[in-house]
Amino acid sequence: VADPDWLELPSDSPFGLENLPYGVFSLGSGARRMGIAVGEYVLDVAAVADRLSPALLDVVARPTLGALLAAGRQRWREVRARVRDWLTDPAARGVVAPHLIDRTGVDLHLPFEVADYVDFYSSAHHAENVGRIFRRDQPPLLPNWRHLPVAYHGRAGTVVVSGTPIARPYGQYKVPGQELPDFGPTRRLDIEAEVGFVVGPATDLGRRVTPAEFDDLVFGVCLVNDWSARDIQSWEYVPLGPFQGKSFATSVSPWIVPVDALQAARVEAPPQDPPVLAHLNQSPRWTFDITLALDLNGHRIAEPPFATLYWTPAQQLAHLTANGARLRTGDLFASGTVSGPQRYQYGSLLELSWNGQQPIELPDGTARSFLLDGDRVTISATAPGPGGSVIGFGEVSGEILTANG
Amino acid sequence: VADPDWLELPSDSPFGLENLPYGVFSLGSGARRMGIAVGEYVLDVAAVADRLSPALLDVVARPTLGALLAAGRQRWREVRARVRDWLTDPAARGVVAPHLIDRTGVDLHLPFEVADYVDFYSSAHHAENVGRIFRRDQPPLLPNWRHLPVAYHGRAGTVVVSGTPIARPYGQYKVPGQELPDFGPTRRLDIEAEVGFVVGPATDLGRRVTPAEFDDLVFGVCLVNDWSARDIQSWEYVPLGPFQGKSFATSVSPWIVPVDALQAARVEAPPQDPPVLAHLNQSPRWTFDITLALDLNGHRIAEPPFATLYWTPAQQLAHLTANGARLRTGDLFASGTVSGPQRYQYGSLLELSWNGQQPIELPDGTARSFLLDGDRVTISATAPGPGGSVIGFGEVSGEILTANG
Repeated sequence: VADPDWLELPSDSPFGLENLPYGVFSLGSGARRMGIAVGEYVLDVAAVADRLSPALLDVVARPTLGALLAAGRQRWREVRARVRDWLTDPAARGVVAPHLIDRTGVDLHLPFEVADYVDFYSSAHHAENVGRIFRRDQPPLLPNWRHLPVAYHGRAGTVVVSGTPIARPYGQYKVPGQELPDFGPTRRLDIEAEVGFVVGPATDLGRRVTPAEFDDLVFGVCLVNDWSARDIQSWEYVPLGPFQGKSFATSVSPWIVPVDALQAARVEAPPQDPPVLAHLNQSPRWTFDITLALDLNGHRIAEPPFATLYWTPAQQLAHLTANGARLRTGDLFASGTVSGPQRYQYGSLLELSWNGQQPIELPDGTARSFLLDGDRVTISATAPGPGGSVIGFGEVSGEILTANG
Repeated sequence: VADPDWLELPSDSPFGLENLPYGVFSLGSGARRMGIAVGEYVLDVAAVADRLSPALLDVVARPTLGALLAAGRQRWREVRARVRDWLTDPAARGVVAPHLIDRTGVDLHLPFEVADYVDFYSSAHHAENVGRIFRRDQPPLLPNWRHLPVAYHGRAGTVVVSGTPIARPYGQYKVPGQELPDFGPTRRLDIEAEVGFVVGPATDLGRRVTPAEFDDLVFGVCLVNDWSARDIQSWEYVPLGPFQGKSFATSVSPWIVPVDALQAARVEAPPQDPPVLAHLNQSPRWTFDITLALDLNGHRIAEPPFATLYWTPAQQLAHLTANGARLRTGDLFASGTVSGPQRYQYGSLLELSWNGQQPIELPDGTARSFLLDGDRVTISATAPGPGGSVIGFGEVSGEILTANG
């Protein structure tokens, strides 16, 4: 892992040469361009490709990642290899350096057009916590939970990039003890700290994807905050699942970390008991060693460990297509709330405050069961890279605005 | 209602001059073009506009309806008025006639890119039937049902045009009495006869739409068959709703009937008790008088009446955005299964066969509880037009193929 001196990348940079995540940026009122985060910079990919690797222009000279996503793994590797060449070849410095832009000065955009958005429910700790909170007289996990990765379709059109303010949503909820529901701003606005996976090439209708195809079909990984209005959700969700309690906004991080950057982050996934049916069998059973960090108004409240999830991303992908549903370029599937076994590892306020029974104390002396107007939530993450390096995911953040009247 | 002689349109034509539904067609290996169904023909809209109304070309010279959908109601009316001029002005005959193509010779395509697909559950008769079948010890309607139009997000990427064969999906299901689930072809493949609504202009994130905005925001109406694998659905759907039991395919009719063509089809909607909360209040409370027809292998098995639905399309639209979720051009929301009070008005085999207890007898001597391989399902519909004319919706059809091994 040799960083070129001229980039002055510290060896523990979350955006070092082993990462090279993709995003879409603009400068001032300029057009959107593909960028790669490196150190404190964003690399204007098309500008350099135009000089050094014009064969890449058809996928990189675009205002969105879509063409690159669709191009497939061989092309992903080719682009990644060329970009590493640019950043490590001293002879390229003169061409590359003018196109390294201070990242603090750019606007970051939703990096791809979300086709379908699917949200899983893959953490046993999270599902058990939810069961213990809401169904105290029943086993915490429902009968289907250990047999398939439960999921639902969310609203692709309200996936927004990190930094987009989140207006507290209105909705219908029923206050316990009242006869009739009310309509008003949610009183129980929550976070769900998740990891998202971005699909590259499309598949044909009718084809089941196997877990082993993950590397060919998934381009990269991002962070997701699946904002949830618990009071709206609990009133509406029987029998067709969450709808208005989730569909007002889902925030994603602006940098898509390539799956190829996470080779050193692969670890064995937790055992599954009972054994899963053949279409969900994954061998070897790997997942990603990604540690999330959840900050509320700048105060760290949890560090959820992705590797503890019962269902792996490769199993999620296989389940998504088990019925022959096709994948489209830009499909986004998220893990569901990442919660580990310890309280400090829970990925939602519902769990962290145990449904309001144990509010979180913040350093400013206030306490939170759910989010207040003005609260700022940031989810960040890291994973191990090769040779002791760190792969950073940047962050997904959002500030809660007062509900629109 | 004056039909020009040269078109030789019978006064009861489902595709008369009062209808003029939009679709996308191709001829042989030719490019996709916007078409309007009239009589037995499809009108090549861009070809005529190029000669007679070039100001329309920016929205009609396209391989999809997207630009027209986005253009808004004033533009929809302008295009519609010009097309009626072309078809009724004898002086235009020479230009128009060469661009009226025999409809039996064209390929019809998905007419717009589906943004988000939402499926409602708005028939009280259907919801009560489902409740009576599956929850015999409880009230047939769940507590939230009369307070909000229950809905879920479906998979936009598997919305297919009429005529697309439907491979019997695999999935996970648990046979009653067995300890563990199986994975295999669904044994309970069903139909849901629905009406779909196509959104035109996008709205901003955070804005709630009122029922009164329906005419400005909804471009047109189509037919939907929301194919459902009941065994997969019933095993997976708690707690996050239907997923693999629905996401393998949803078929839509190729012709989008403009909302403007359905002015004479507006009727008073059924009363609601208890009164709905203010954001769902619709006054006057109207719906569309659309009568569906459900044919199985050419045999009519049901005629579900859309006007009986408890929740109207305008209320569905308002609920969809009650939390500030934005609309995008090409959003498709469907009514949910249309079932009337009589058995012959039920819109699913689940209800028609009462979960297999009363199989349907077909003229060939066979019976059906659910669909068999080789079965062909067709949903068609009509609504009243002005002056005794008929507005046809064409059909949405699909044949069941043996499951992919």
